[in-house]
Amino acid sequence: MGGDAAPDEIVRGAALASTATDIETMLVGDEARIQAILDQVAYNPENLSIVPATDVIGMGDDPRLVRERKHSSLVLAVRAAADGRADAVVSAGNTGACILAAADQFALLPGIRRAALASVYPRQVEHEGQDRLALLLDVGATVRCEAEELVQLAIMGSAYARRISKVPEPRVGLLNMGSEESKGGAVLVDAHARLRRQPAIRFVGNVEGNDLVRGKADVIVCEGLVGNVALKLLEGISETLGELARAAAEQRLVWRVGLRLLSQGVERVQALTDYTQYGGSPILGFEHLFIKCHGRSNARAIVNAIKVAAKGVRDRVPTEMREALARMR
Amino acid sequence: MGGDAAPDEIVRGAALASTATDIETMLVGDEARIQAILDQVAYNPENLSIVPATDVIGMGDDPRLVRERKHSSLVLAVRAAADGRADAVVSAGNTGACILAAADQFALLPGIRRAALASVYPRQVEHEGQDRLALLLDVGATVRCEAEELVQLAIMGSAYARRISKVPEPRVGLLNMGSEESKGGAVLVDAHARLRRQPAIRFVGNVEGNDLVRGKADVIVCEGLVGNVALKLLEGISETLGELARAAAEQRLVWRVGLRLLSQGVERVQALTDYTQYGGSPILGFEHLFIKCHGRSNARAIVNAIKVAAKGVRDRVPTEMREALARMR
Repeated sequence: MGGDAAPDEIVRGAALASTATDIETMLVGDEARIQAILDQVAYNPENLSIVPATDVIGMGDDPRLVRERKHSSLVLAVRAAADGRADAVVSAGNTGACILAAADQFALLPGIRRAALASVYPRQVEHEGQDRLALLLDVGATVRCEAEELVQLAIMGSAYARRISKVPEPRVGLLNMGSEESKGGAVLVDAHARLRRQPAIRFVGNVEGNDLVRGKADVIVCEGLVGNVALKLLEGISETLGELARAAAEQRLVWRVGLRLLSQGVERVQALTDYTQYGGSPILGFEHLFIKCHGRSNARAIVNAIKVAAKGVRDRVPTEMREALARMR
Repeated sequence: MGGDAAPDEIVRGAALASTATDIETMLVGDEARIQAILDQVAYNPENLSIVPATDVIGMGDDPRLVRERKHSSLVLAVRAAADGRADAVVSAGNTGACILAAADQFALLPGIRRAALASVYPRQVEHEGQDRLALLLDVGATVRCEAEELVQLAIMGSAYARRISKVPEPRVGLLNMGSEESKGGAVLVDAHARLRRQPAIRFVGNVEGNDLVRGKADVIVCEGLVGNVALKLLEGISETLGELARAAAEQRLVWRVGLRLLSQGVERVQALTDYTQYGGSPILGFEHLFIKCHGRSNARAIVNAIKVAAKGVRDRVPTEMREALARMR
């Protein structure tokens, strides 16, 4: 029930996944509305079931409402995973509420004090075999982080990328205001030194804001305030590019001709910032996987998110993270 | 002598300013090299003089070299302003060295503990009469800021924008990870509350990363780490767009046709991120004005920076800042 186009696009995405994959999806929400949408599309009932929920948490609601609305679709979906009836959760709903609902019901991985929100976003590729998607974390579950927490983010993000992107040794970077190890104040200097001595990750040093759209690192760690500003800036520029493309398409013939000729190039730039076309991003730090989709997710984004969640479960991503954290120095 | 295209583009810019304006520019640097460049261009000798300097600080040099290289062009240019022989300094050189040279020789404004580096960059306009340029500060002179320092940034930035952009009441925003006043941790919550009660500025509340490319605020304040990452991210995206435009222009005819048809649109997006085409950005907090240009500045950027510096002097920007700071609550 969460998302700007919910439940329609969410249900359509799950229906698509039911016919295109062998993943079993439980749709948690308003049974009658969900069934009415399903009646209009093709789906495989063997891979799709409905778990009724009588309440919702709105996109603009205070996240703390998860503690009152025990029968909301979000709270019930998280409970299904906590109880072992589901293996992972996918939601395009209220981000703060997703993090809080997970924090209330999921166990944290050993050594982790609080969850982190990652963002998967496309960027340019510099190295052979590199995934075109990078992982930026934390993007808003925290404000400040201690050095140890930044190292934990690096270890969890690296484990996630190793499994989901199948890059055997993801490049890990520390987002900073300069490439030198002396930059960024005491916490970042300490984090840099600790990251240097981690055996489980491939640390490539500090990265700067411009490196976010380049391929210097595959996993970029930072405190939530910085990550959130960077992510939303990428989002803002993506929207501006989208507005340009739409305006051009609507305007007049020469524009349309121009756009067609340039479409490859415009798409290349747009793909660089338009992360909404990609499934979802993980909330990391729990024993269970939670894939958080962008609020504007359409059916295609939901299918991709369901696939990412299933891949994460099959590839035992939480176990991978637990084992990597145990080797932390 | 500072800048990626120095001294050529710097000297050419000063020569242009000498014929196009009544501003008197002192070129500080290698006298023979400067004169050789001047011999190739048109200039008005009444508005142009050379102050010989035998040393330079390189773009990649440790900024602390300003304390050893007393005869570098940067140190001598700052000294000329500190001694009253010049009214303001313009440089496209090593940013850290510029800040340090100014800190060593200029007096801080009353109440200010350390200087801030601002960035002037173009963005979309939302309100009537709004300047298409916004001011983001601090972008790297600090790492963290206290709440009081963020308020000082707001007051100085607002005074600068009021004079330079001629917007009578610039909108001031606090860069944060949410629009609610409760967001961003103790320092930002405190800064928000203090900004609310400032009589001298028009505070529009928290702004988020995506607002940086929109017109919600004209002056955006943040600690240096966040501002530096945001600025360099804008720079990285600008470079990517520039590469696309160049690749398209070089590739083949249909691309060139497409590019011409779309040029207005591509330029609109590029202008949104390509801040290199605009003069320079101020180092704020001193009794003297220092306009820091981007390292890649060409002659046009230098002319604009010289004009901005002269405008700031004529409009008594440091006095405006001193008076606004005195009214701080």
